[in-house]
Amino acid sequence: MIGTGVIGYGYWGPNVVRNLNAHPEIDLAVIVDKDPGRLHLAGQSYPHVRVSENADEVFNNGDIDLVCITTPVFSHFGLAKQALEKGKHIFIEKPFTSTVEEAEILIGIAHKNQCLIMVDHTFLFTGAVRKIKSLVDDGTLGELLYYDSVRVNLGLFQHDVNVIWDLAPHDISIMDYILNGKSPCAVSAFGAGHFGRHLQDVAYLTLQFDNNFIAHFNVNWLSPVKVRRTLLAGDRKMLVWDDLKADEKVKIYDTGVQVQTKEGAYEAMVDYRIGDMLAPVLDRTEALKKEIGYLVQCIRDKETPVNDGRAGLRVVQILELSNRSIQQNGMLIDFETGGKV
Amino acid sequence: MIGTGVIGYGYWGPNVVRNLNAHPEIDLAVIVDKDPGRLHLAGQSYPHVRVSENADEVFNNGDIDLVCITTPVFSHFGLAKQALEKGKHIFIEKPFTSTVEEAEILIGIAHKNQCLIMVDHTFLFTGAVRKIKSLVDDGTLGELLYYDSVRVNLGLFQHDVNVIWDLAPHDISIMDYILNGKSPCAVSAFGAGHFGRHLQDVAYLTLQFDNNFIAHFNVNWLSPVKVRRTLLAGDRKMLVWDDLKADEKVKIYDTGVQVQTKEGAYEAMVDYRIGDMLAPVLDRTEALKKEIGYLVQCIRDKETPVNDGRAGLRVVQILELSNRSIQQNGMLIDFETGGKV
Amino acid sequence: MIGTGVIGYGYWGPNVVRNLNAHPEIDLAVIVDKDPGRLHLAGQSYPHVRVSENADEVFNNGDIDLVCITTPVFSHFGLAKQALEKGKHIFIEKPFTSTVEEAEILIGIAHKNQCLIMVDHTFLFTGAVRKIKSLVDDGTLGELLYYDSVRVNLGLFQHDVNVIWDLAPHDISIMDYILNGKSPCAVSAFGAGHFGRHLQDVAYLTLQFDNNFIAHFNVNWLSPVKVRRTLLAGDRKMLVWDDLKADEKVKIYDTGVQVQTKEGAYEAMVDYRIGDMLAPVLDRTEALKKEIGYLVQCIRDKETPVNDGRAGLRVVQILELSNRSIQQNGMLIDFETGGKV
Amino acid sequence: MIGTGVIGYGYWGPNVVRNLNAHPEIDLAVIVDKDPGRLHLAGQSYPHVRVSENADEVFNNGDIDLVCITTPVFSHFGLAKQALEKGKHIFIEKPFTSTVEEAEILIGIAHKNQCLIMVDHTFLFTGAVRKIKSLVDDGTLGELLYYDSVRVNLGLFQHDVNVIWDLAPHDISIMDYILNGKSPCAVSAFGAGHFGRHLQDVAYLTLQFDNNFIAHFNVNWLSPVKVRRTLLAGDRKMLVWDDLKADEKVKIYDTGVQVQTKEGAYEAMVDYRIGDMLAPVLDRTEALKKEIGYLVQCIRDKETPVNDGRAGLRVVQILELSNRSIQQNGMLIDFETGGKV
Repeated sequence: MIGTGVIGYGYWGPNVVRNLNAHPEIDLAVIVDKDPGRLHLAGQSYPHVRVSENADEVFNNGDIDLVCITTPVFSHFGLAKQALEKGKHIFIEKPFTSTVEEAEILIGIAHKNQCLIMVDHTFLFTGAVRKIKSLVDDGTLGELLYYDSVRVNLGLFQHDVNVIWDLAPHDISIMDYILNGKSPCAVSAFGAGHFGRHLQDVAYLTLQFDNNFIAHFNVNWLSPVKVRRTLLAGDRKMLVWDDLKADEKVKIYDTGVQVQTKEGAYEAMVDYRIGDMLAPVLDRTEALKKEIGYLVQCIRDKETPVNDGRAGLRVVQILELSNRSIQQNGMLIDFETGGKV
Repeated sequence: MIGTGVIGYGYWGPNVVRNLNAHPEIDLAVIVDKDPGRLHLAGQSYPHVRVSENADEVFNNGDIDLVCITTPVFSHFGLAKQALEKGKHIFIEKPFTSTVEEAEILIGIAHKNQCLIMVDHTFLFTGAVRKIKSLVDDGTLGELLYYDSVRVNLGLFQHDVNVIWDLAPHDISIMDYILNGKSPCAVSAFGAGHFGRHLQDVAYLTLQFDNNFIAHFNVNWLSPVKVRRTLLAGDRKMLVWDDLKADEKVKIYDTGVQVQTKEGAYEAMVDYRIGDMLAPVLDRTEALKKEIGYLVQCIRDKETPVNDGRAGLRVVQILELSNRSIQQNGMLIDFETGGKV
Repeated sequence: MIGTGVIGYGYWGPNVVRNLNAHPEIDLAVIVDKDPGRLHLAGQSYPHVRVSENADEVFNNGDIDLVCITTPVFSHFGLAKQALEKGKHIFIEKPFTSTVEEAEILIGIAHKNQCLIMVDHTFLFTGAVRKIKSLVDDGTLGELLYYDSVRVNLGLFQHDVNVIWDLAPHDISIMDYILNGKSPCAVSAFGAGHFGRHLQDVAYLTLQFDNNFIAHFNVNWLSPVKVRRTLLAGDRKMLVWDDLKADEKVKIYDTGVQVQTKEGAYEAMVDYRIGDMLAPVLDRTEALKKEIGYLVQCIRDKETPVNDGRAGLRVVQILELSNRSIQQNGMLIDFETGGKV
Repeated sequence: MIGTGVIGYGYWGPNVVRNLNAHPEIDLAVIVDKDPGRLHLAGQSYPHVRVSENADEVFNNGDIDLVCITTPVFSHFGLAKQALEKGKHIFIEKPFTSTVEEAEILIGIAHKNQCLIMVDHTFLFTGAVRKIKSLVDDGTLGELLYYDSVRVNLGLFQHDVNVIWDLAPHDISIMDYILNGKSPCAVSAFGAGHFGRHLQDVAYLTLQFDNNFIAHFNVNWLSPVKVRRTLLAGDRKMLVWDDLKADEKVKIYDTGVQVQTKEGAYEAMVDYRIGDMLAPVLDRTEALKKEIGYLVQCIRDKETPVNDGRAGLRVVQILELSNRSIQQNGMLIDFETGGKV
């Protein structure tokens, strides 16, 4: 049994607690929240679990091996640092940290103390993303050409982060997973804030990769309609993932491009063909349930999770560069050097 | 009766000819195309109209007052120049010209010779765009916040222009019309070309305006699905225009944002409300028919058309800057000076 | 406080219990189920509530004024009879009973003992149905022409009832509510059963009313796609209700029919006009929560609920006639006399 | 070359003429219409073809082997009879005739004079219907369970036929083709007429077949939305055909039903499984073009067309019985005897 404490019982915390509580190898010992109302709610739902307003009850509890941090991002670094320094594994909300520096420090402590870091990139455990990754890994799509994501809706305006930090971590972590952690060469972002605010409520993020692969993220808190759609094209097949559909979320098009290189021609001739569309049946297991199961497995078997601190760091790095690019008129920033491309 | 000649009977020409032929004040005299096969087709369909492979039969025909140029863009300047120098009005395909300089020269000649230039921005004459413009003009949407356009499909790869030049002129001319010709402050574009080609088949174009209004155009020849969707949000209402729908193309959401400025608060509090959605009935008259009618009216009444040479020039200016931005890593270019913002 | 017992903690029971438990005027005293596994679950979720395998603990408990019966339909009559004979109000799943005779007996007992019967026609408390009813009541739709409902999906095959008894009670109760309890003149039903079963898995139910109003219900357990769509047309406006849509569930079309009666013409000339479409914002409160609130209000204020035993009876009457019609080759049966029309 | 005359240049005639004119083995000699305006139009479009108001110019023209009859149904019998008696082949609009008796007479004359009858069931030549038939023929769907068709819209009210005669011939002929001409055992229809008319504008047609296969047709001139959707389920796979979709018109669901027969159990246990969905690429050739090509081939090679007079007769037979059923309160009528089942 893995003694477990949870810090943060706000919007997402209850889902994490519910799945921890249902796992046979987890011993859920303490739930912490600063808000007495939320704590009361936690106590009612889980009368067998201790509740407290004081996070030290988690850090100082020798029976606790795993700390789940489901608090706003600004508090991640401080809480995670304490947990890791006490030698505890952490499961932490996305985005991992507010800065690259914080992420690197946490990874260093975890390494020294042999602790596991798992960042809660929940979408990686959905049937849709699993299917998409398998289509990339087994070569079905062929060489990838572009990744185009739209995540827009009428959104709760955050007070401390812009719309990229709020919405894009989902998509960046998904793409990072699909690309097996491959980093972009360069980052550019544009956006606009309205209503006298300094934070962007509409933004566009572009990532450039080797081999002319390009990724683009459209995020928006001011859309009258909700859209969650990703296009991913390879030179063999192409797919559309519409996460709002009840069924047929992933459609795979046997559609491709034919290139004819004629001798002496300056440009290759390019034509396309249209074929069947397949919508595969997807695993409908709750993603968070699968992720918690994977968390337990990684701790038990001392595996490095795919969504470890380094994966979290890569996402934060892109987010941090997007902020710098926005402040410099969309300047394309080199991912390695942080300077102008 | 307006004596009329048409140069170019390829993809779009037959539609223009059909509408010219049906207009009671147009006397369609000559159709010109270099391809004998196309000419033969024209002759079969319009046995009363003279056909020729030689454009001079149009330019040198004293009975012709109007020349309609429906040829590829690279040939626009030469043909338009000859027509205008002969004192003839022109109706010309979009994009107007290949460069800003060409557009300015043509506008100068037309001005000197008191000729009319109408650029065929057909979408301006659709029921959908007319409705959207009226909603902006009468203040229904309130102050505009952003314009977000997606125009993607499996596309015929052009050999001389990239996907922005191929697809974005539609959207740029529509936005220009809705904004009453207001120019952006700055332009940036990113894209990627594949299959060993030097021309972008996937691209993203961002325009920045005063007052934090931002416009973004997503154009793509490599999408397995066809999308034609524009979001336009104001601070009073927001709309979605989906041009692929048979009905309910324009949906107006009585959805808005409420800003509460609290004394002492650093950032304004922003919240949103959701209201009814209205899909107004739209005029279904063929857009090109309305445009040809408007063309005749402008010539007859010596009106300056809304889609005149200056409107065509503004579109070309943005296209030209998009090319320069792409070549300079998406650099944000000042619309007035052409330099880095 | 209304002392309350619940019998049946299967598929729907937990939703009823959750809403009862959350209501400040309900004192949830006992939950009964024959299945120890279900009871254990109930006990875990509601540790303050007594659980029992014996329904007599409800019937014989003098503190209980309200009995909620959420068991399969074949058990409704026996349980409801005992509760009503003990002078307790009942809230009972749909369909009310297995036969008209049972429903009439229960209504009689309730009348004698001054007990309230509320049949759980949950859909009556959704924002969509409330809006539709208001559009009928205030004359927006005009005189009604037809009601056309499709409710199909891959369904769990029931072992004791056919697809009409399983799916159509939703739609029949909704239509009954919208029509203010108006009964049809006649009933006909067709269907087919497959796989060696004697119960229909595909069926069509037609109801004829005065004034050429016709209602039709398409229910099907063998559809590869899920459809929940109702068309309701009046001579002023028409509407579509698509219950699977996340937004814009109800669309009202300002579409009508114009009749020109020409003197001497045998048939009136009929033409139609197409106008705007409006999708009104709908109340999103959980329907069952509203229904439980209404239940408490009716008990407290001695109101007769709109979904009382008589409403339940009308639904059962149609279901019963549908069975008879199916057995007699779709014979159109007079609603009043039960004989052939 | 097949000398050809066309009678009727109204709504559908021009499409037939266009395709006849484009076929290299057709010699289009005469177009007949009673309306001089329509004739004028025909003459303008096909200056090389003779036009006439007199059908005798077709019947008495010895060079004409094929007569295409694209007139309203009430005139079919008279025109077809004259053509066949002159020994000419006919291509005739659907529905074939107004009565079964008429159809049988025409079939008799054609047989005697060795003429071909082809009824214009155009949908049989679409990519969608061809694909569906192939899935039935090759056993992909397994044993068929039901056919469920919806064809509704705001419709032009016909003055001489009800909505079944107007809309259902499409669907009945499609189903007849898919089922290889298998006839139903029995027919029932219900409907309602409004606005003081005696003809149904809303109707439901049910056909019963052997082996519990059931077919149902929902046709409606009073729907605010246009729907063209057919469900066809087999015990191996199921499909949905949505003819209004630009792409993915036919979706095949690898969804089935599993039957477990337990010894001693009264009813078989039935469960279902959900699998992948495939939308095959479909032939997009214009259906009428393919049909005209097939017409020429049948005449040339003396083949009996699949859409011959007997196919037309089967459709008319169902239509005729539907009228009788409506007049007798939806009575289920035996297809063979014409009496009550």
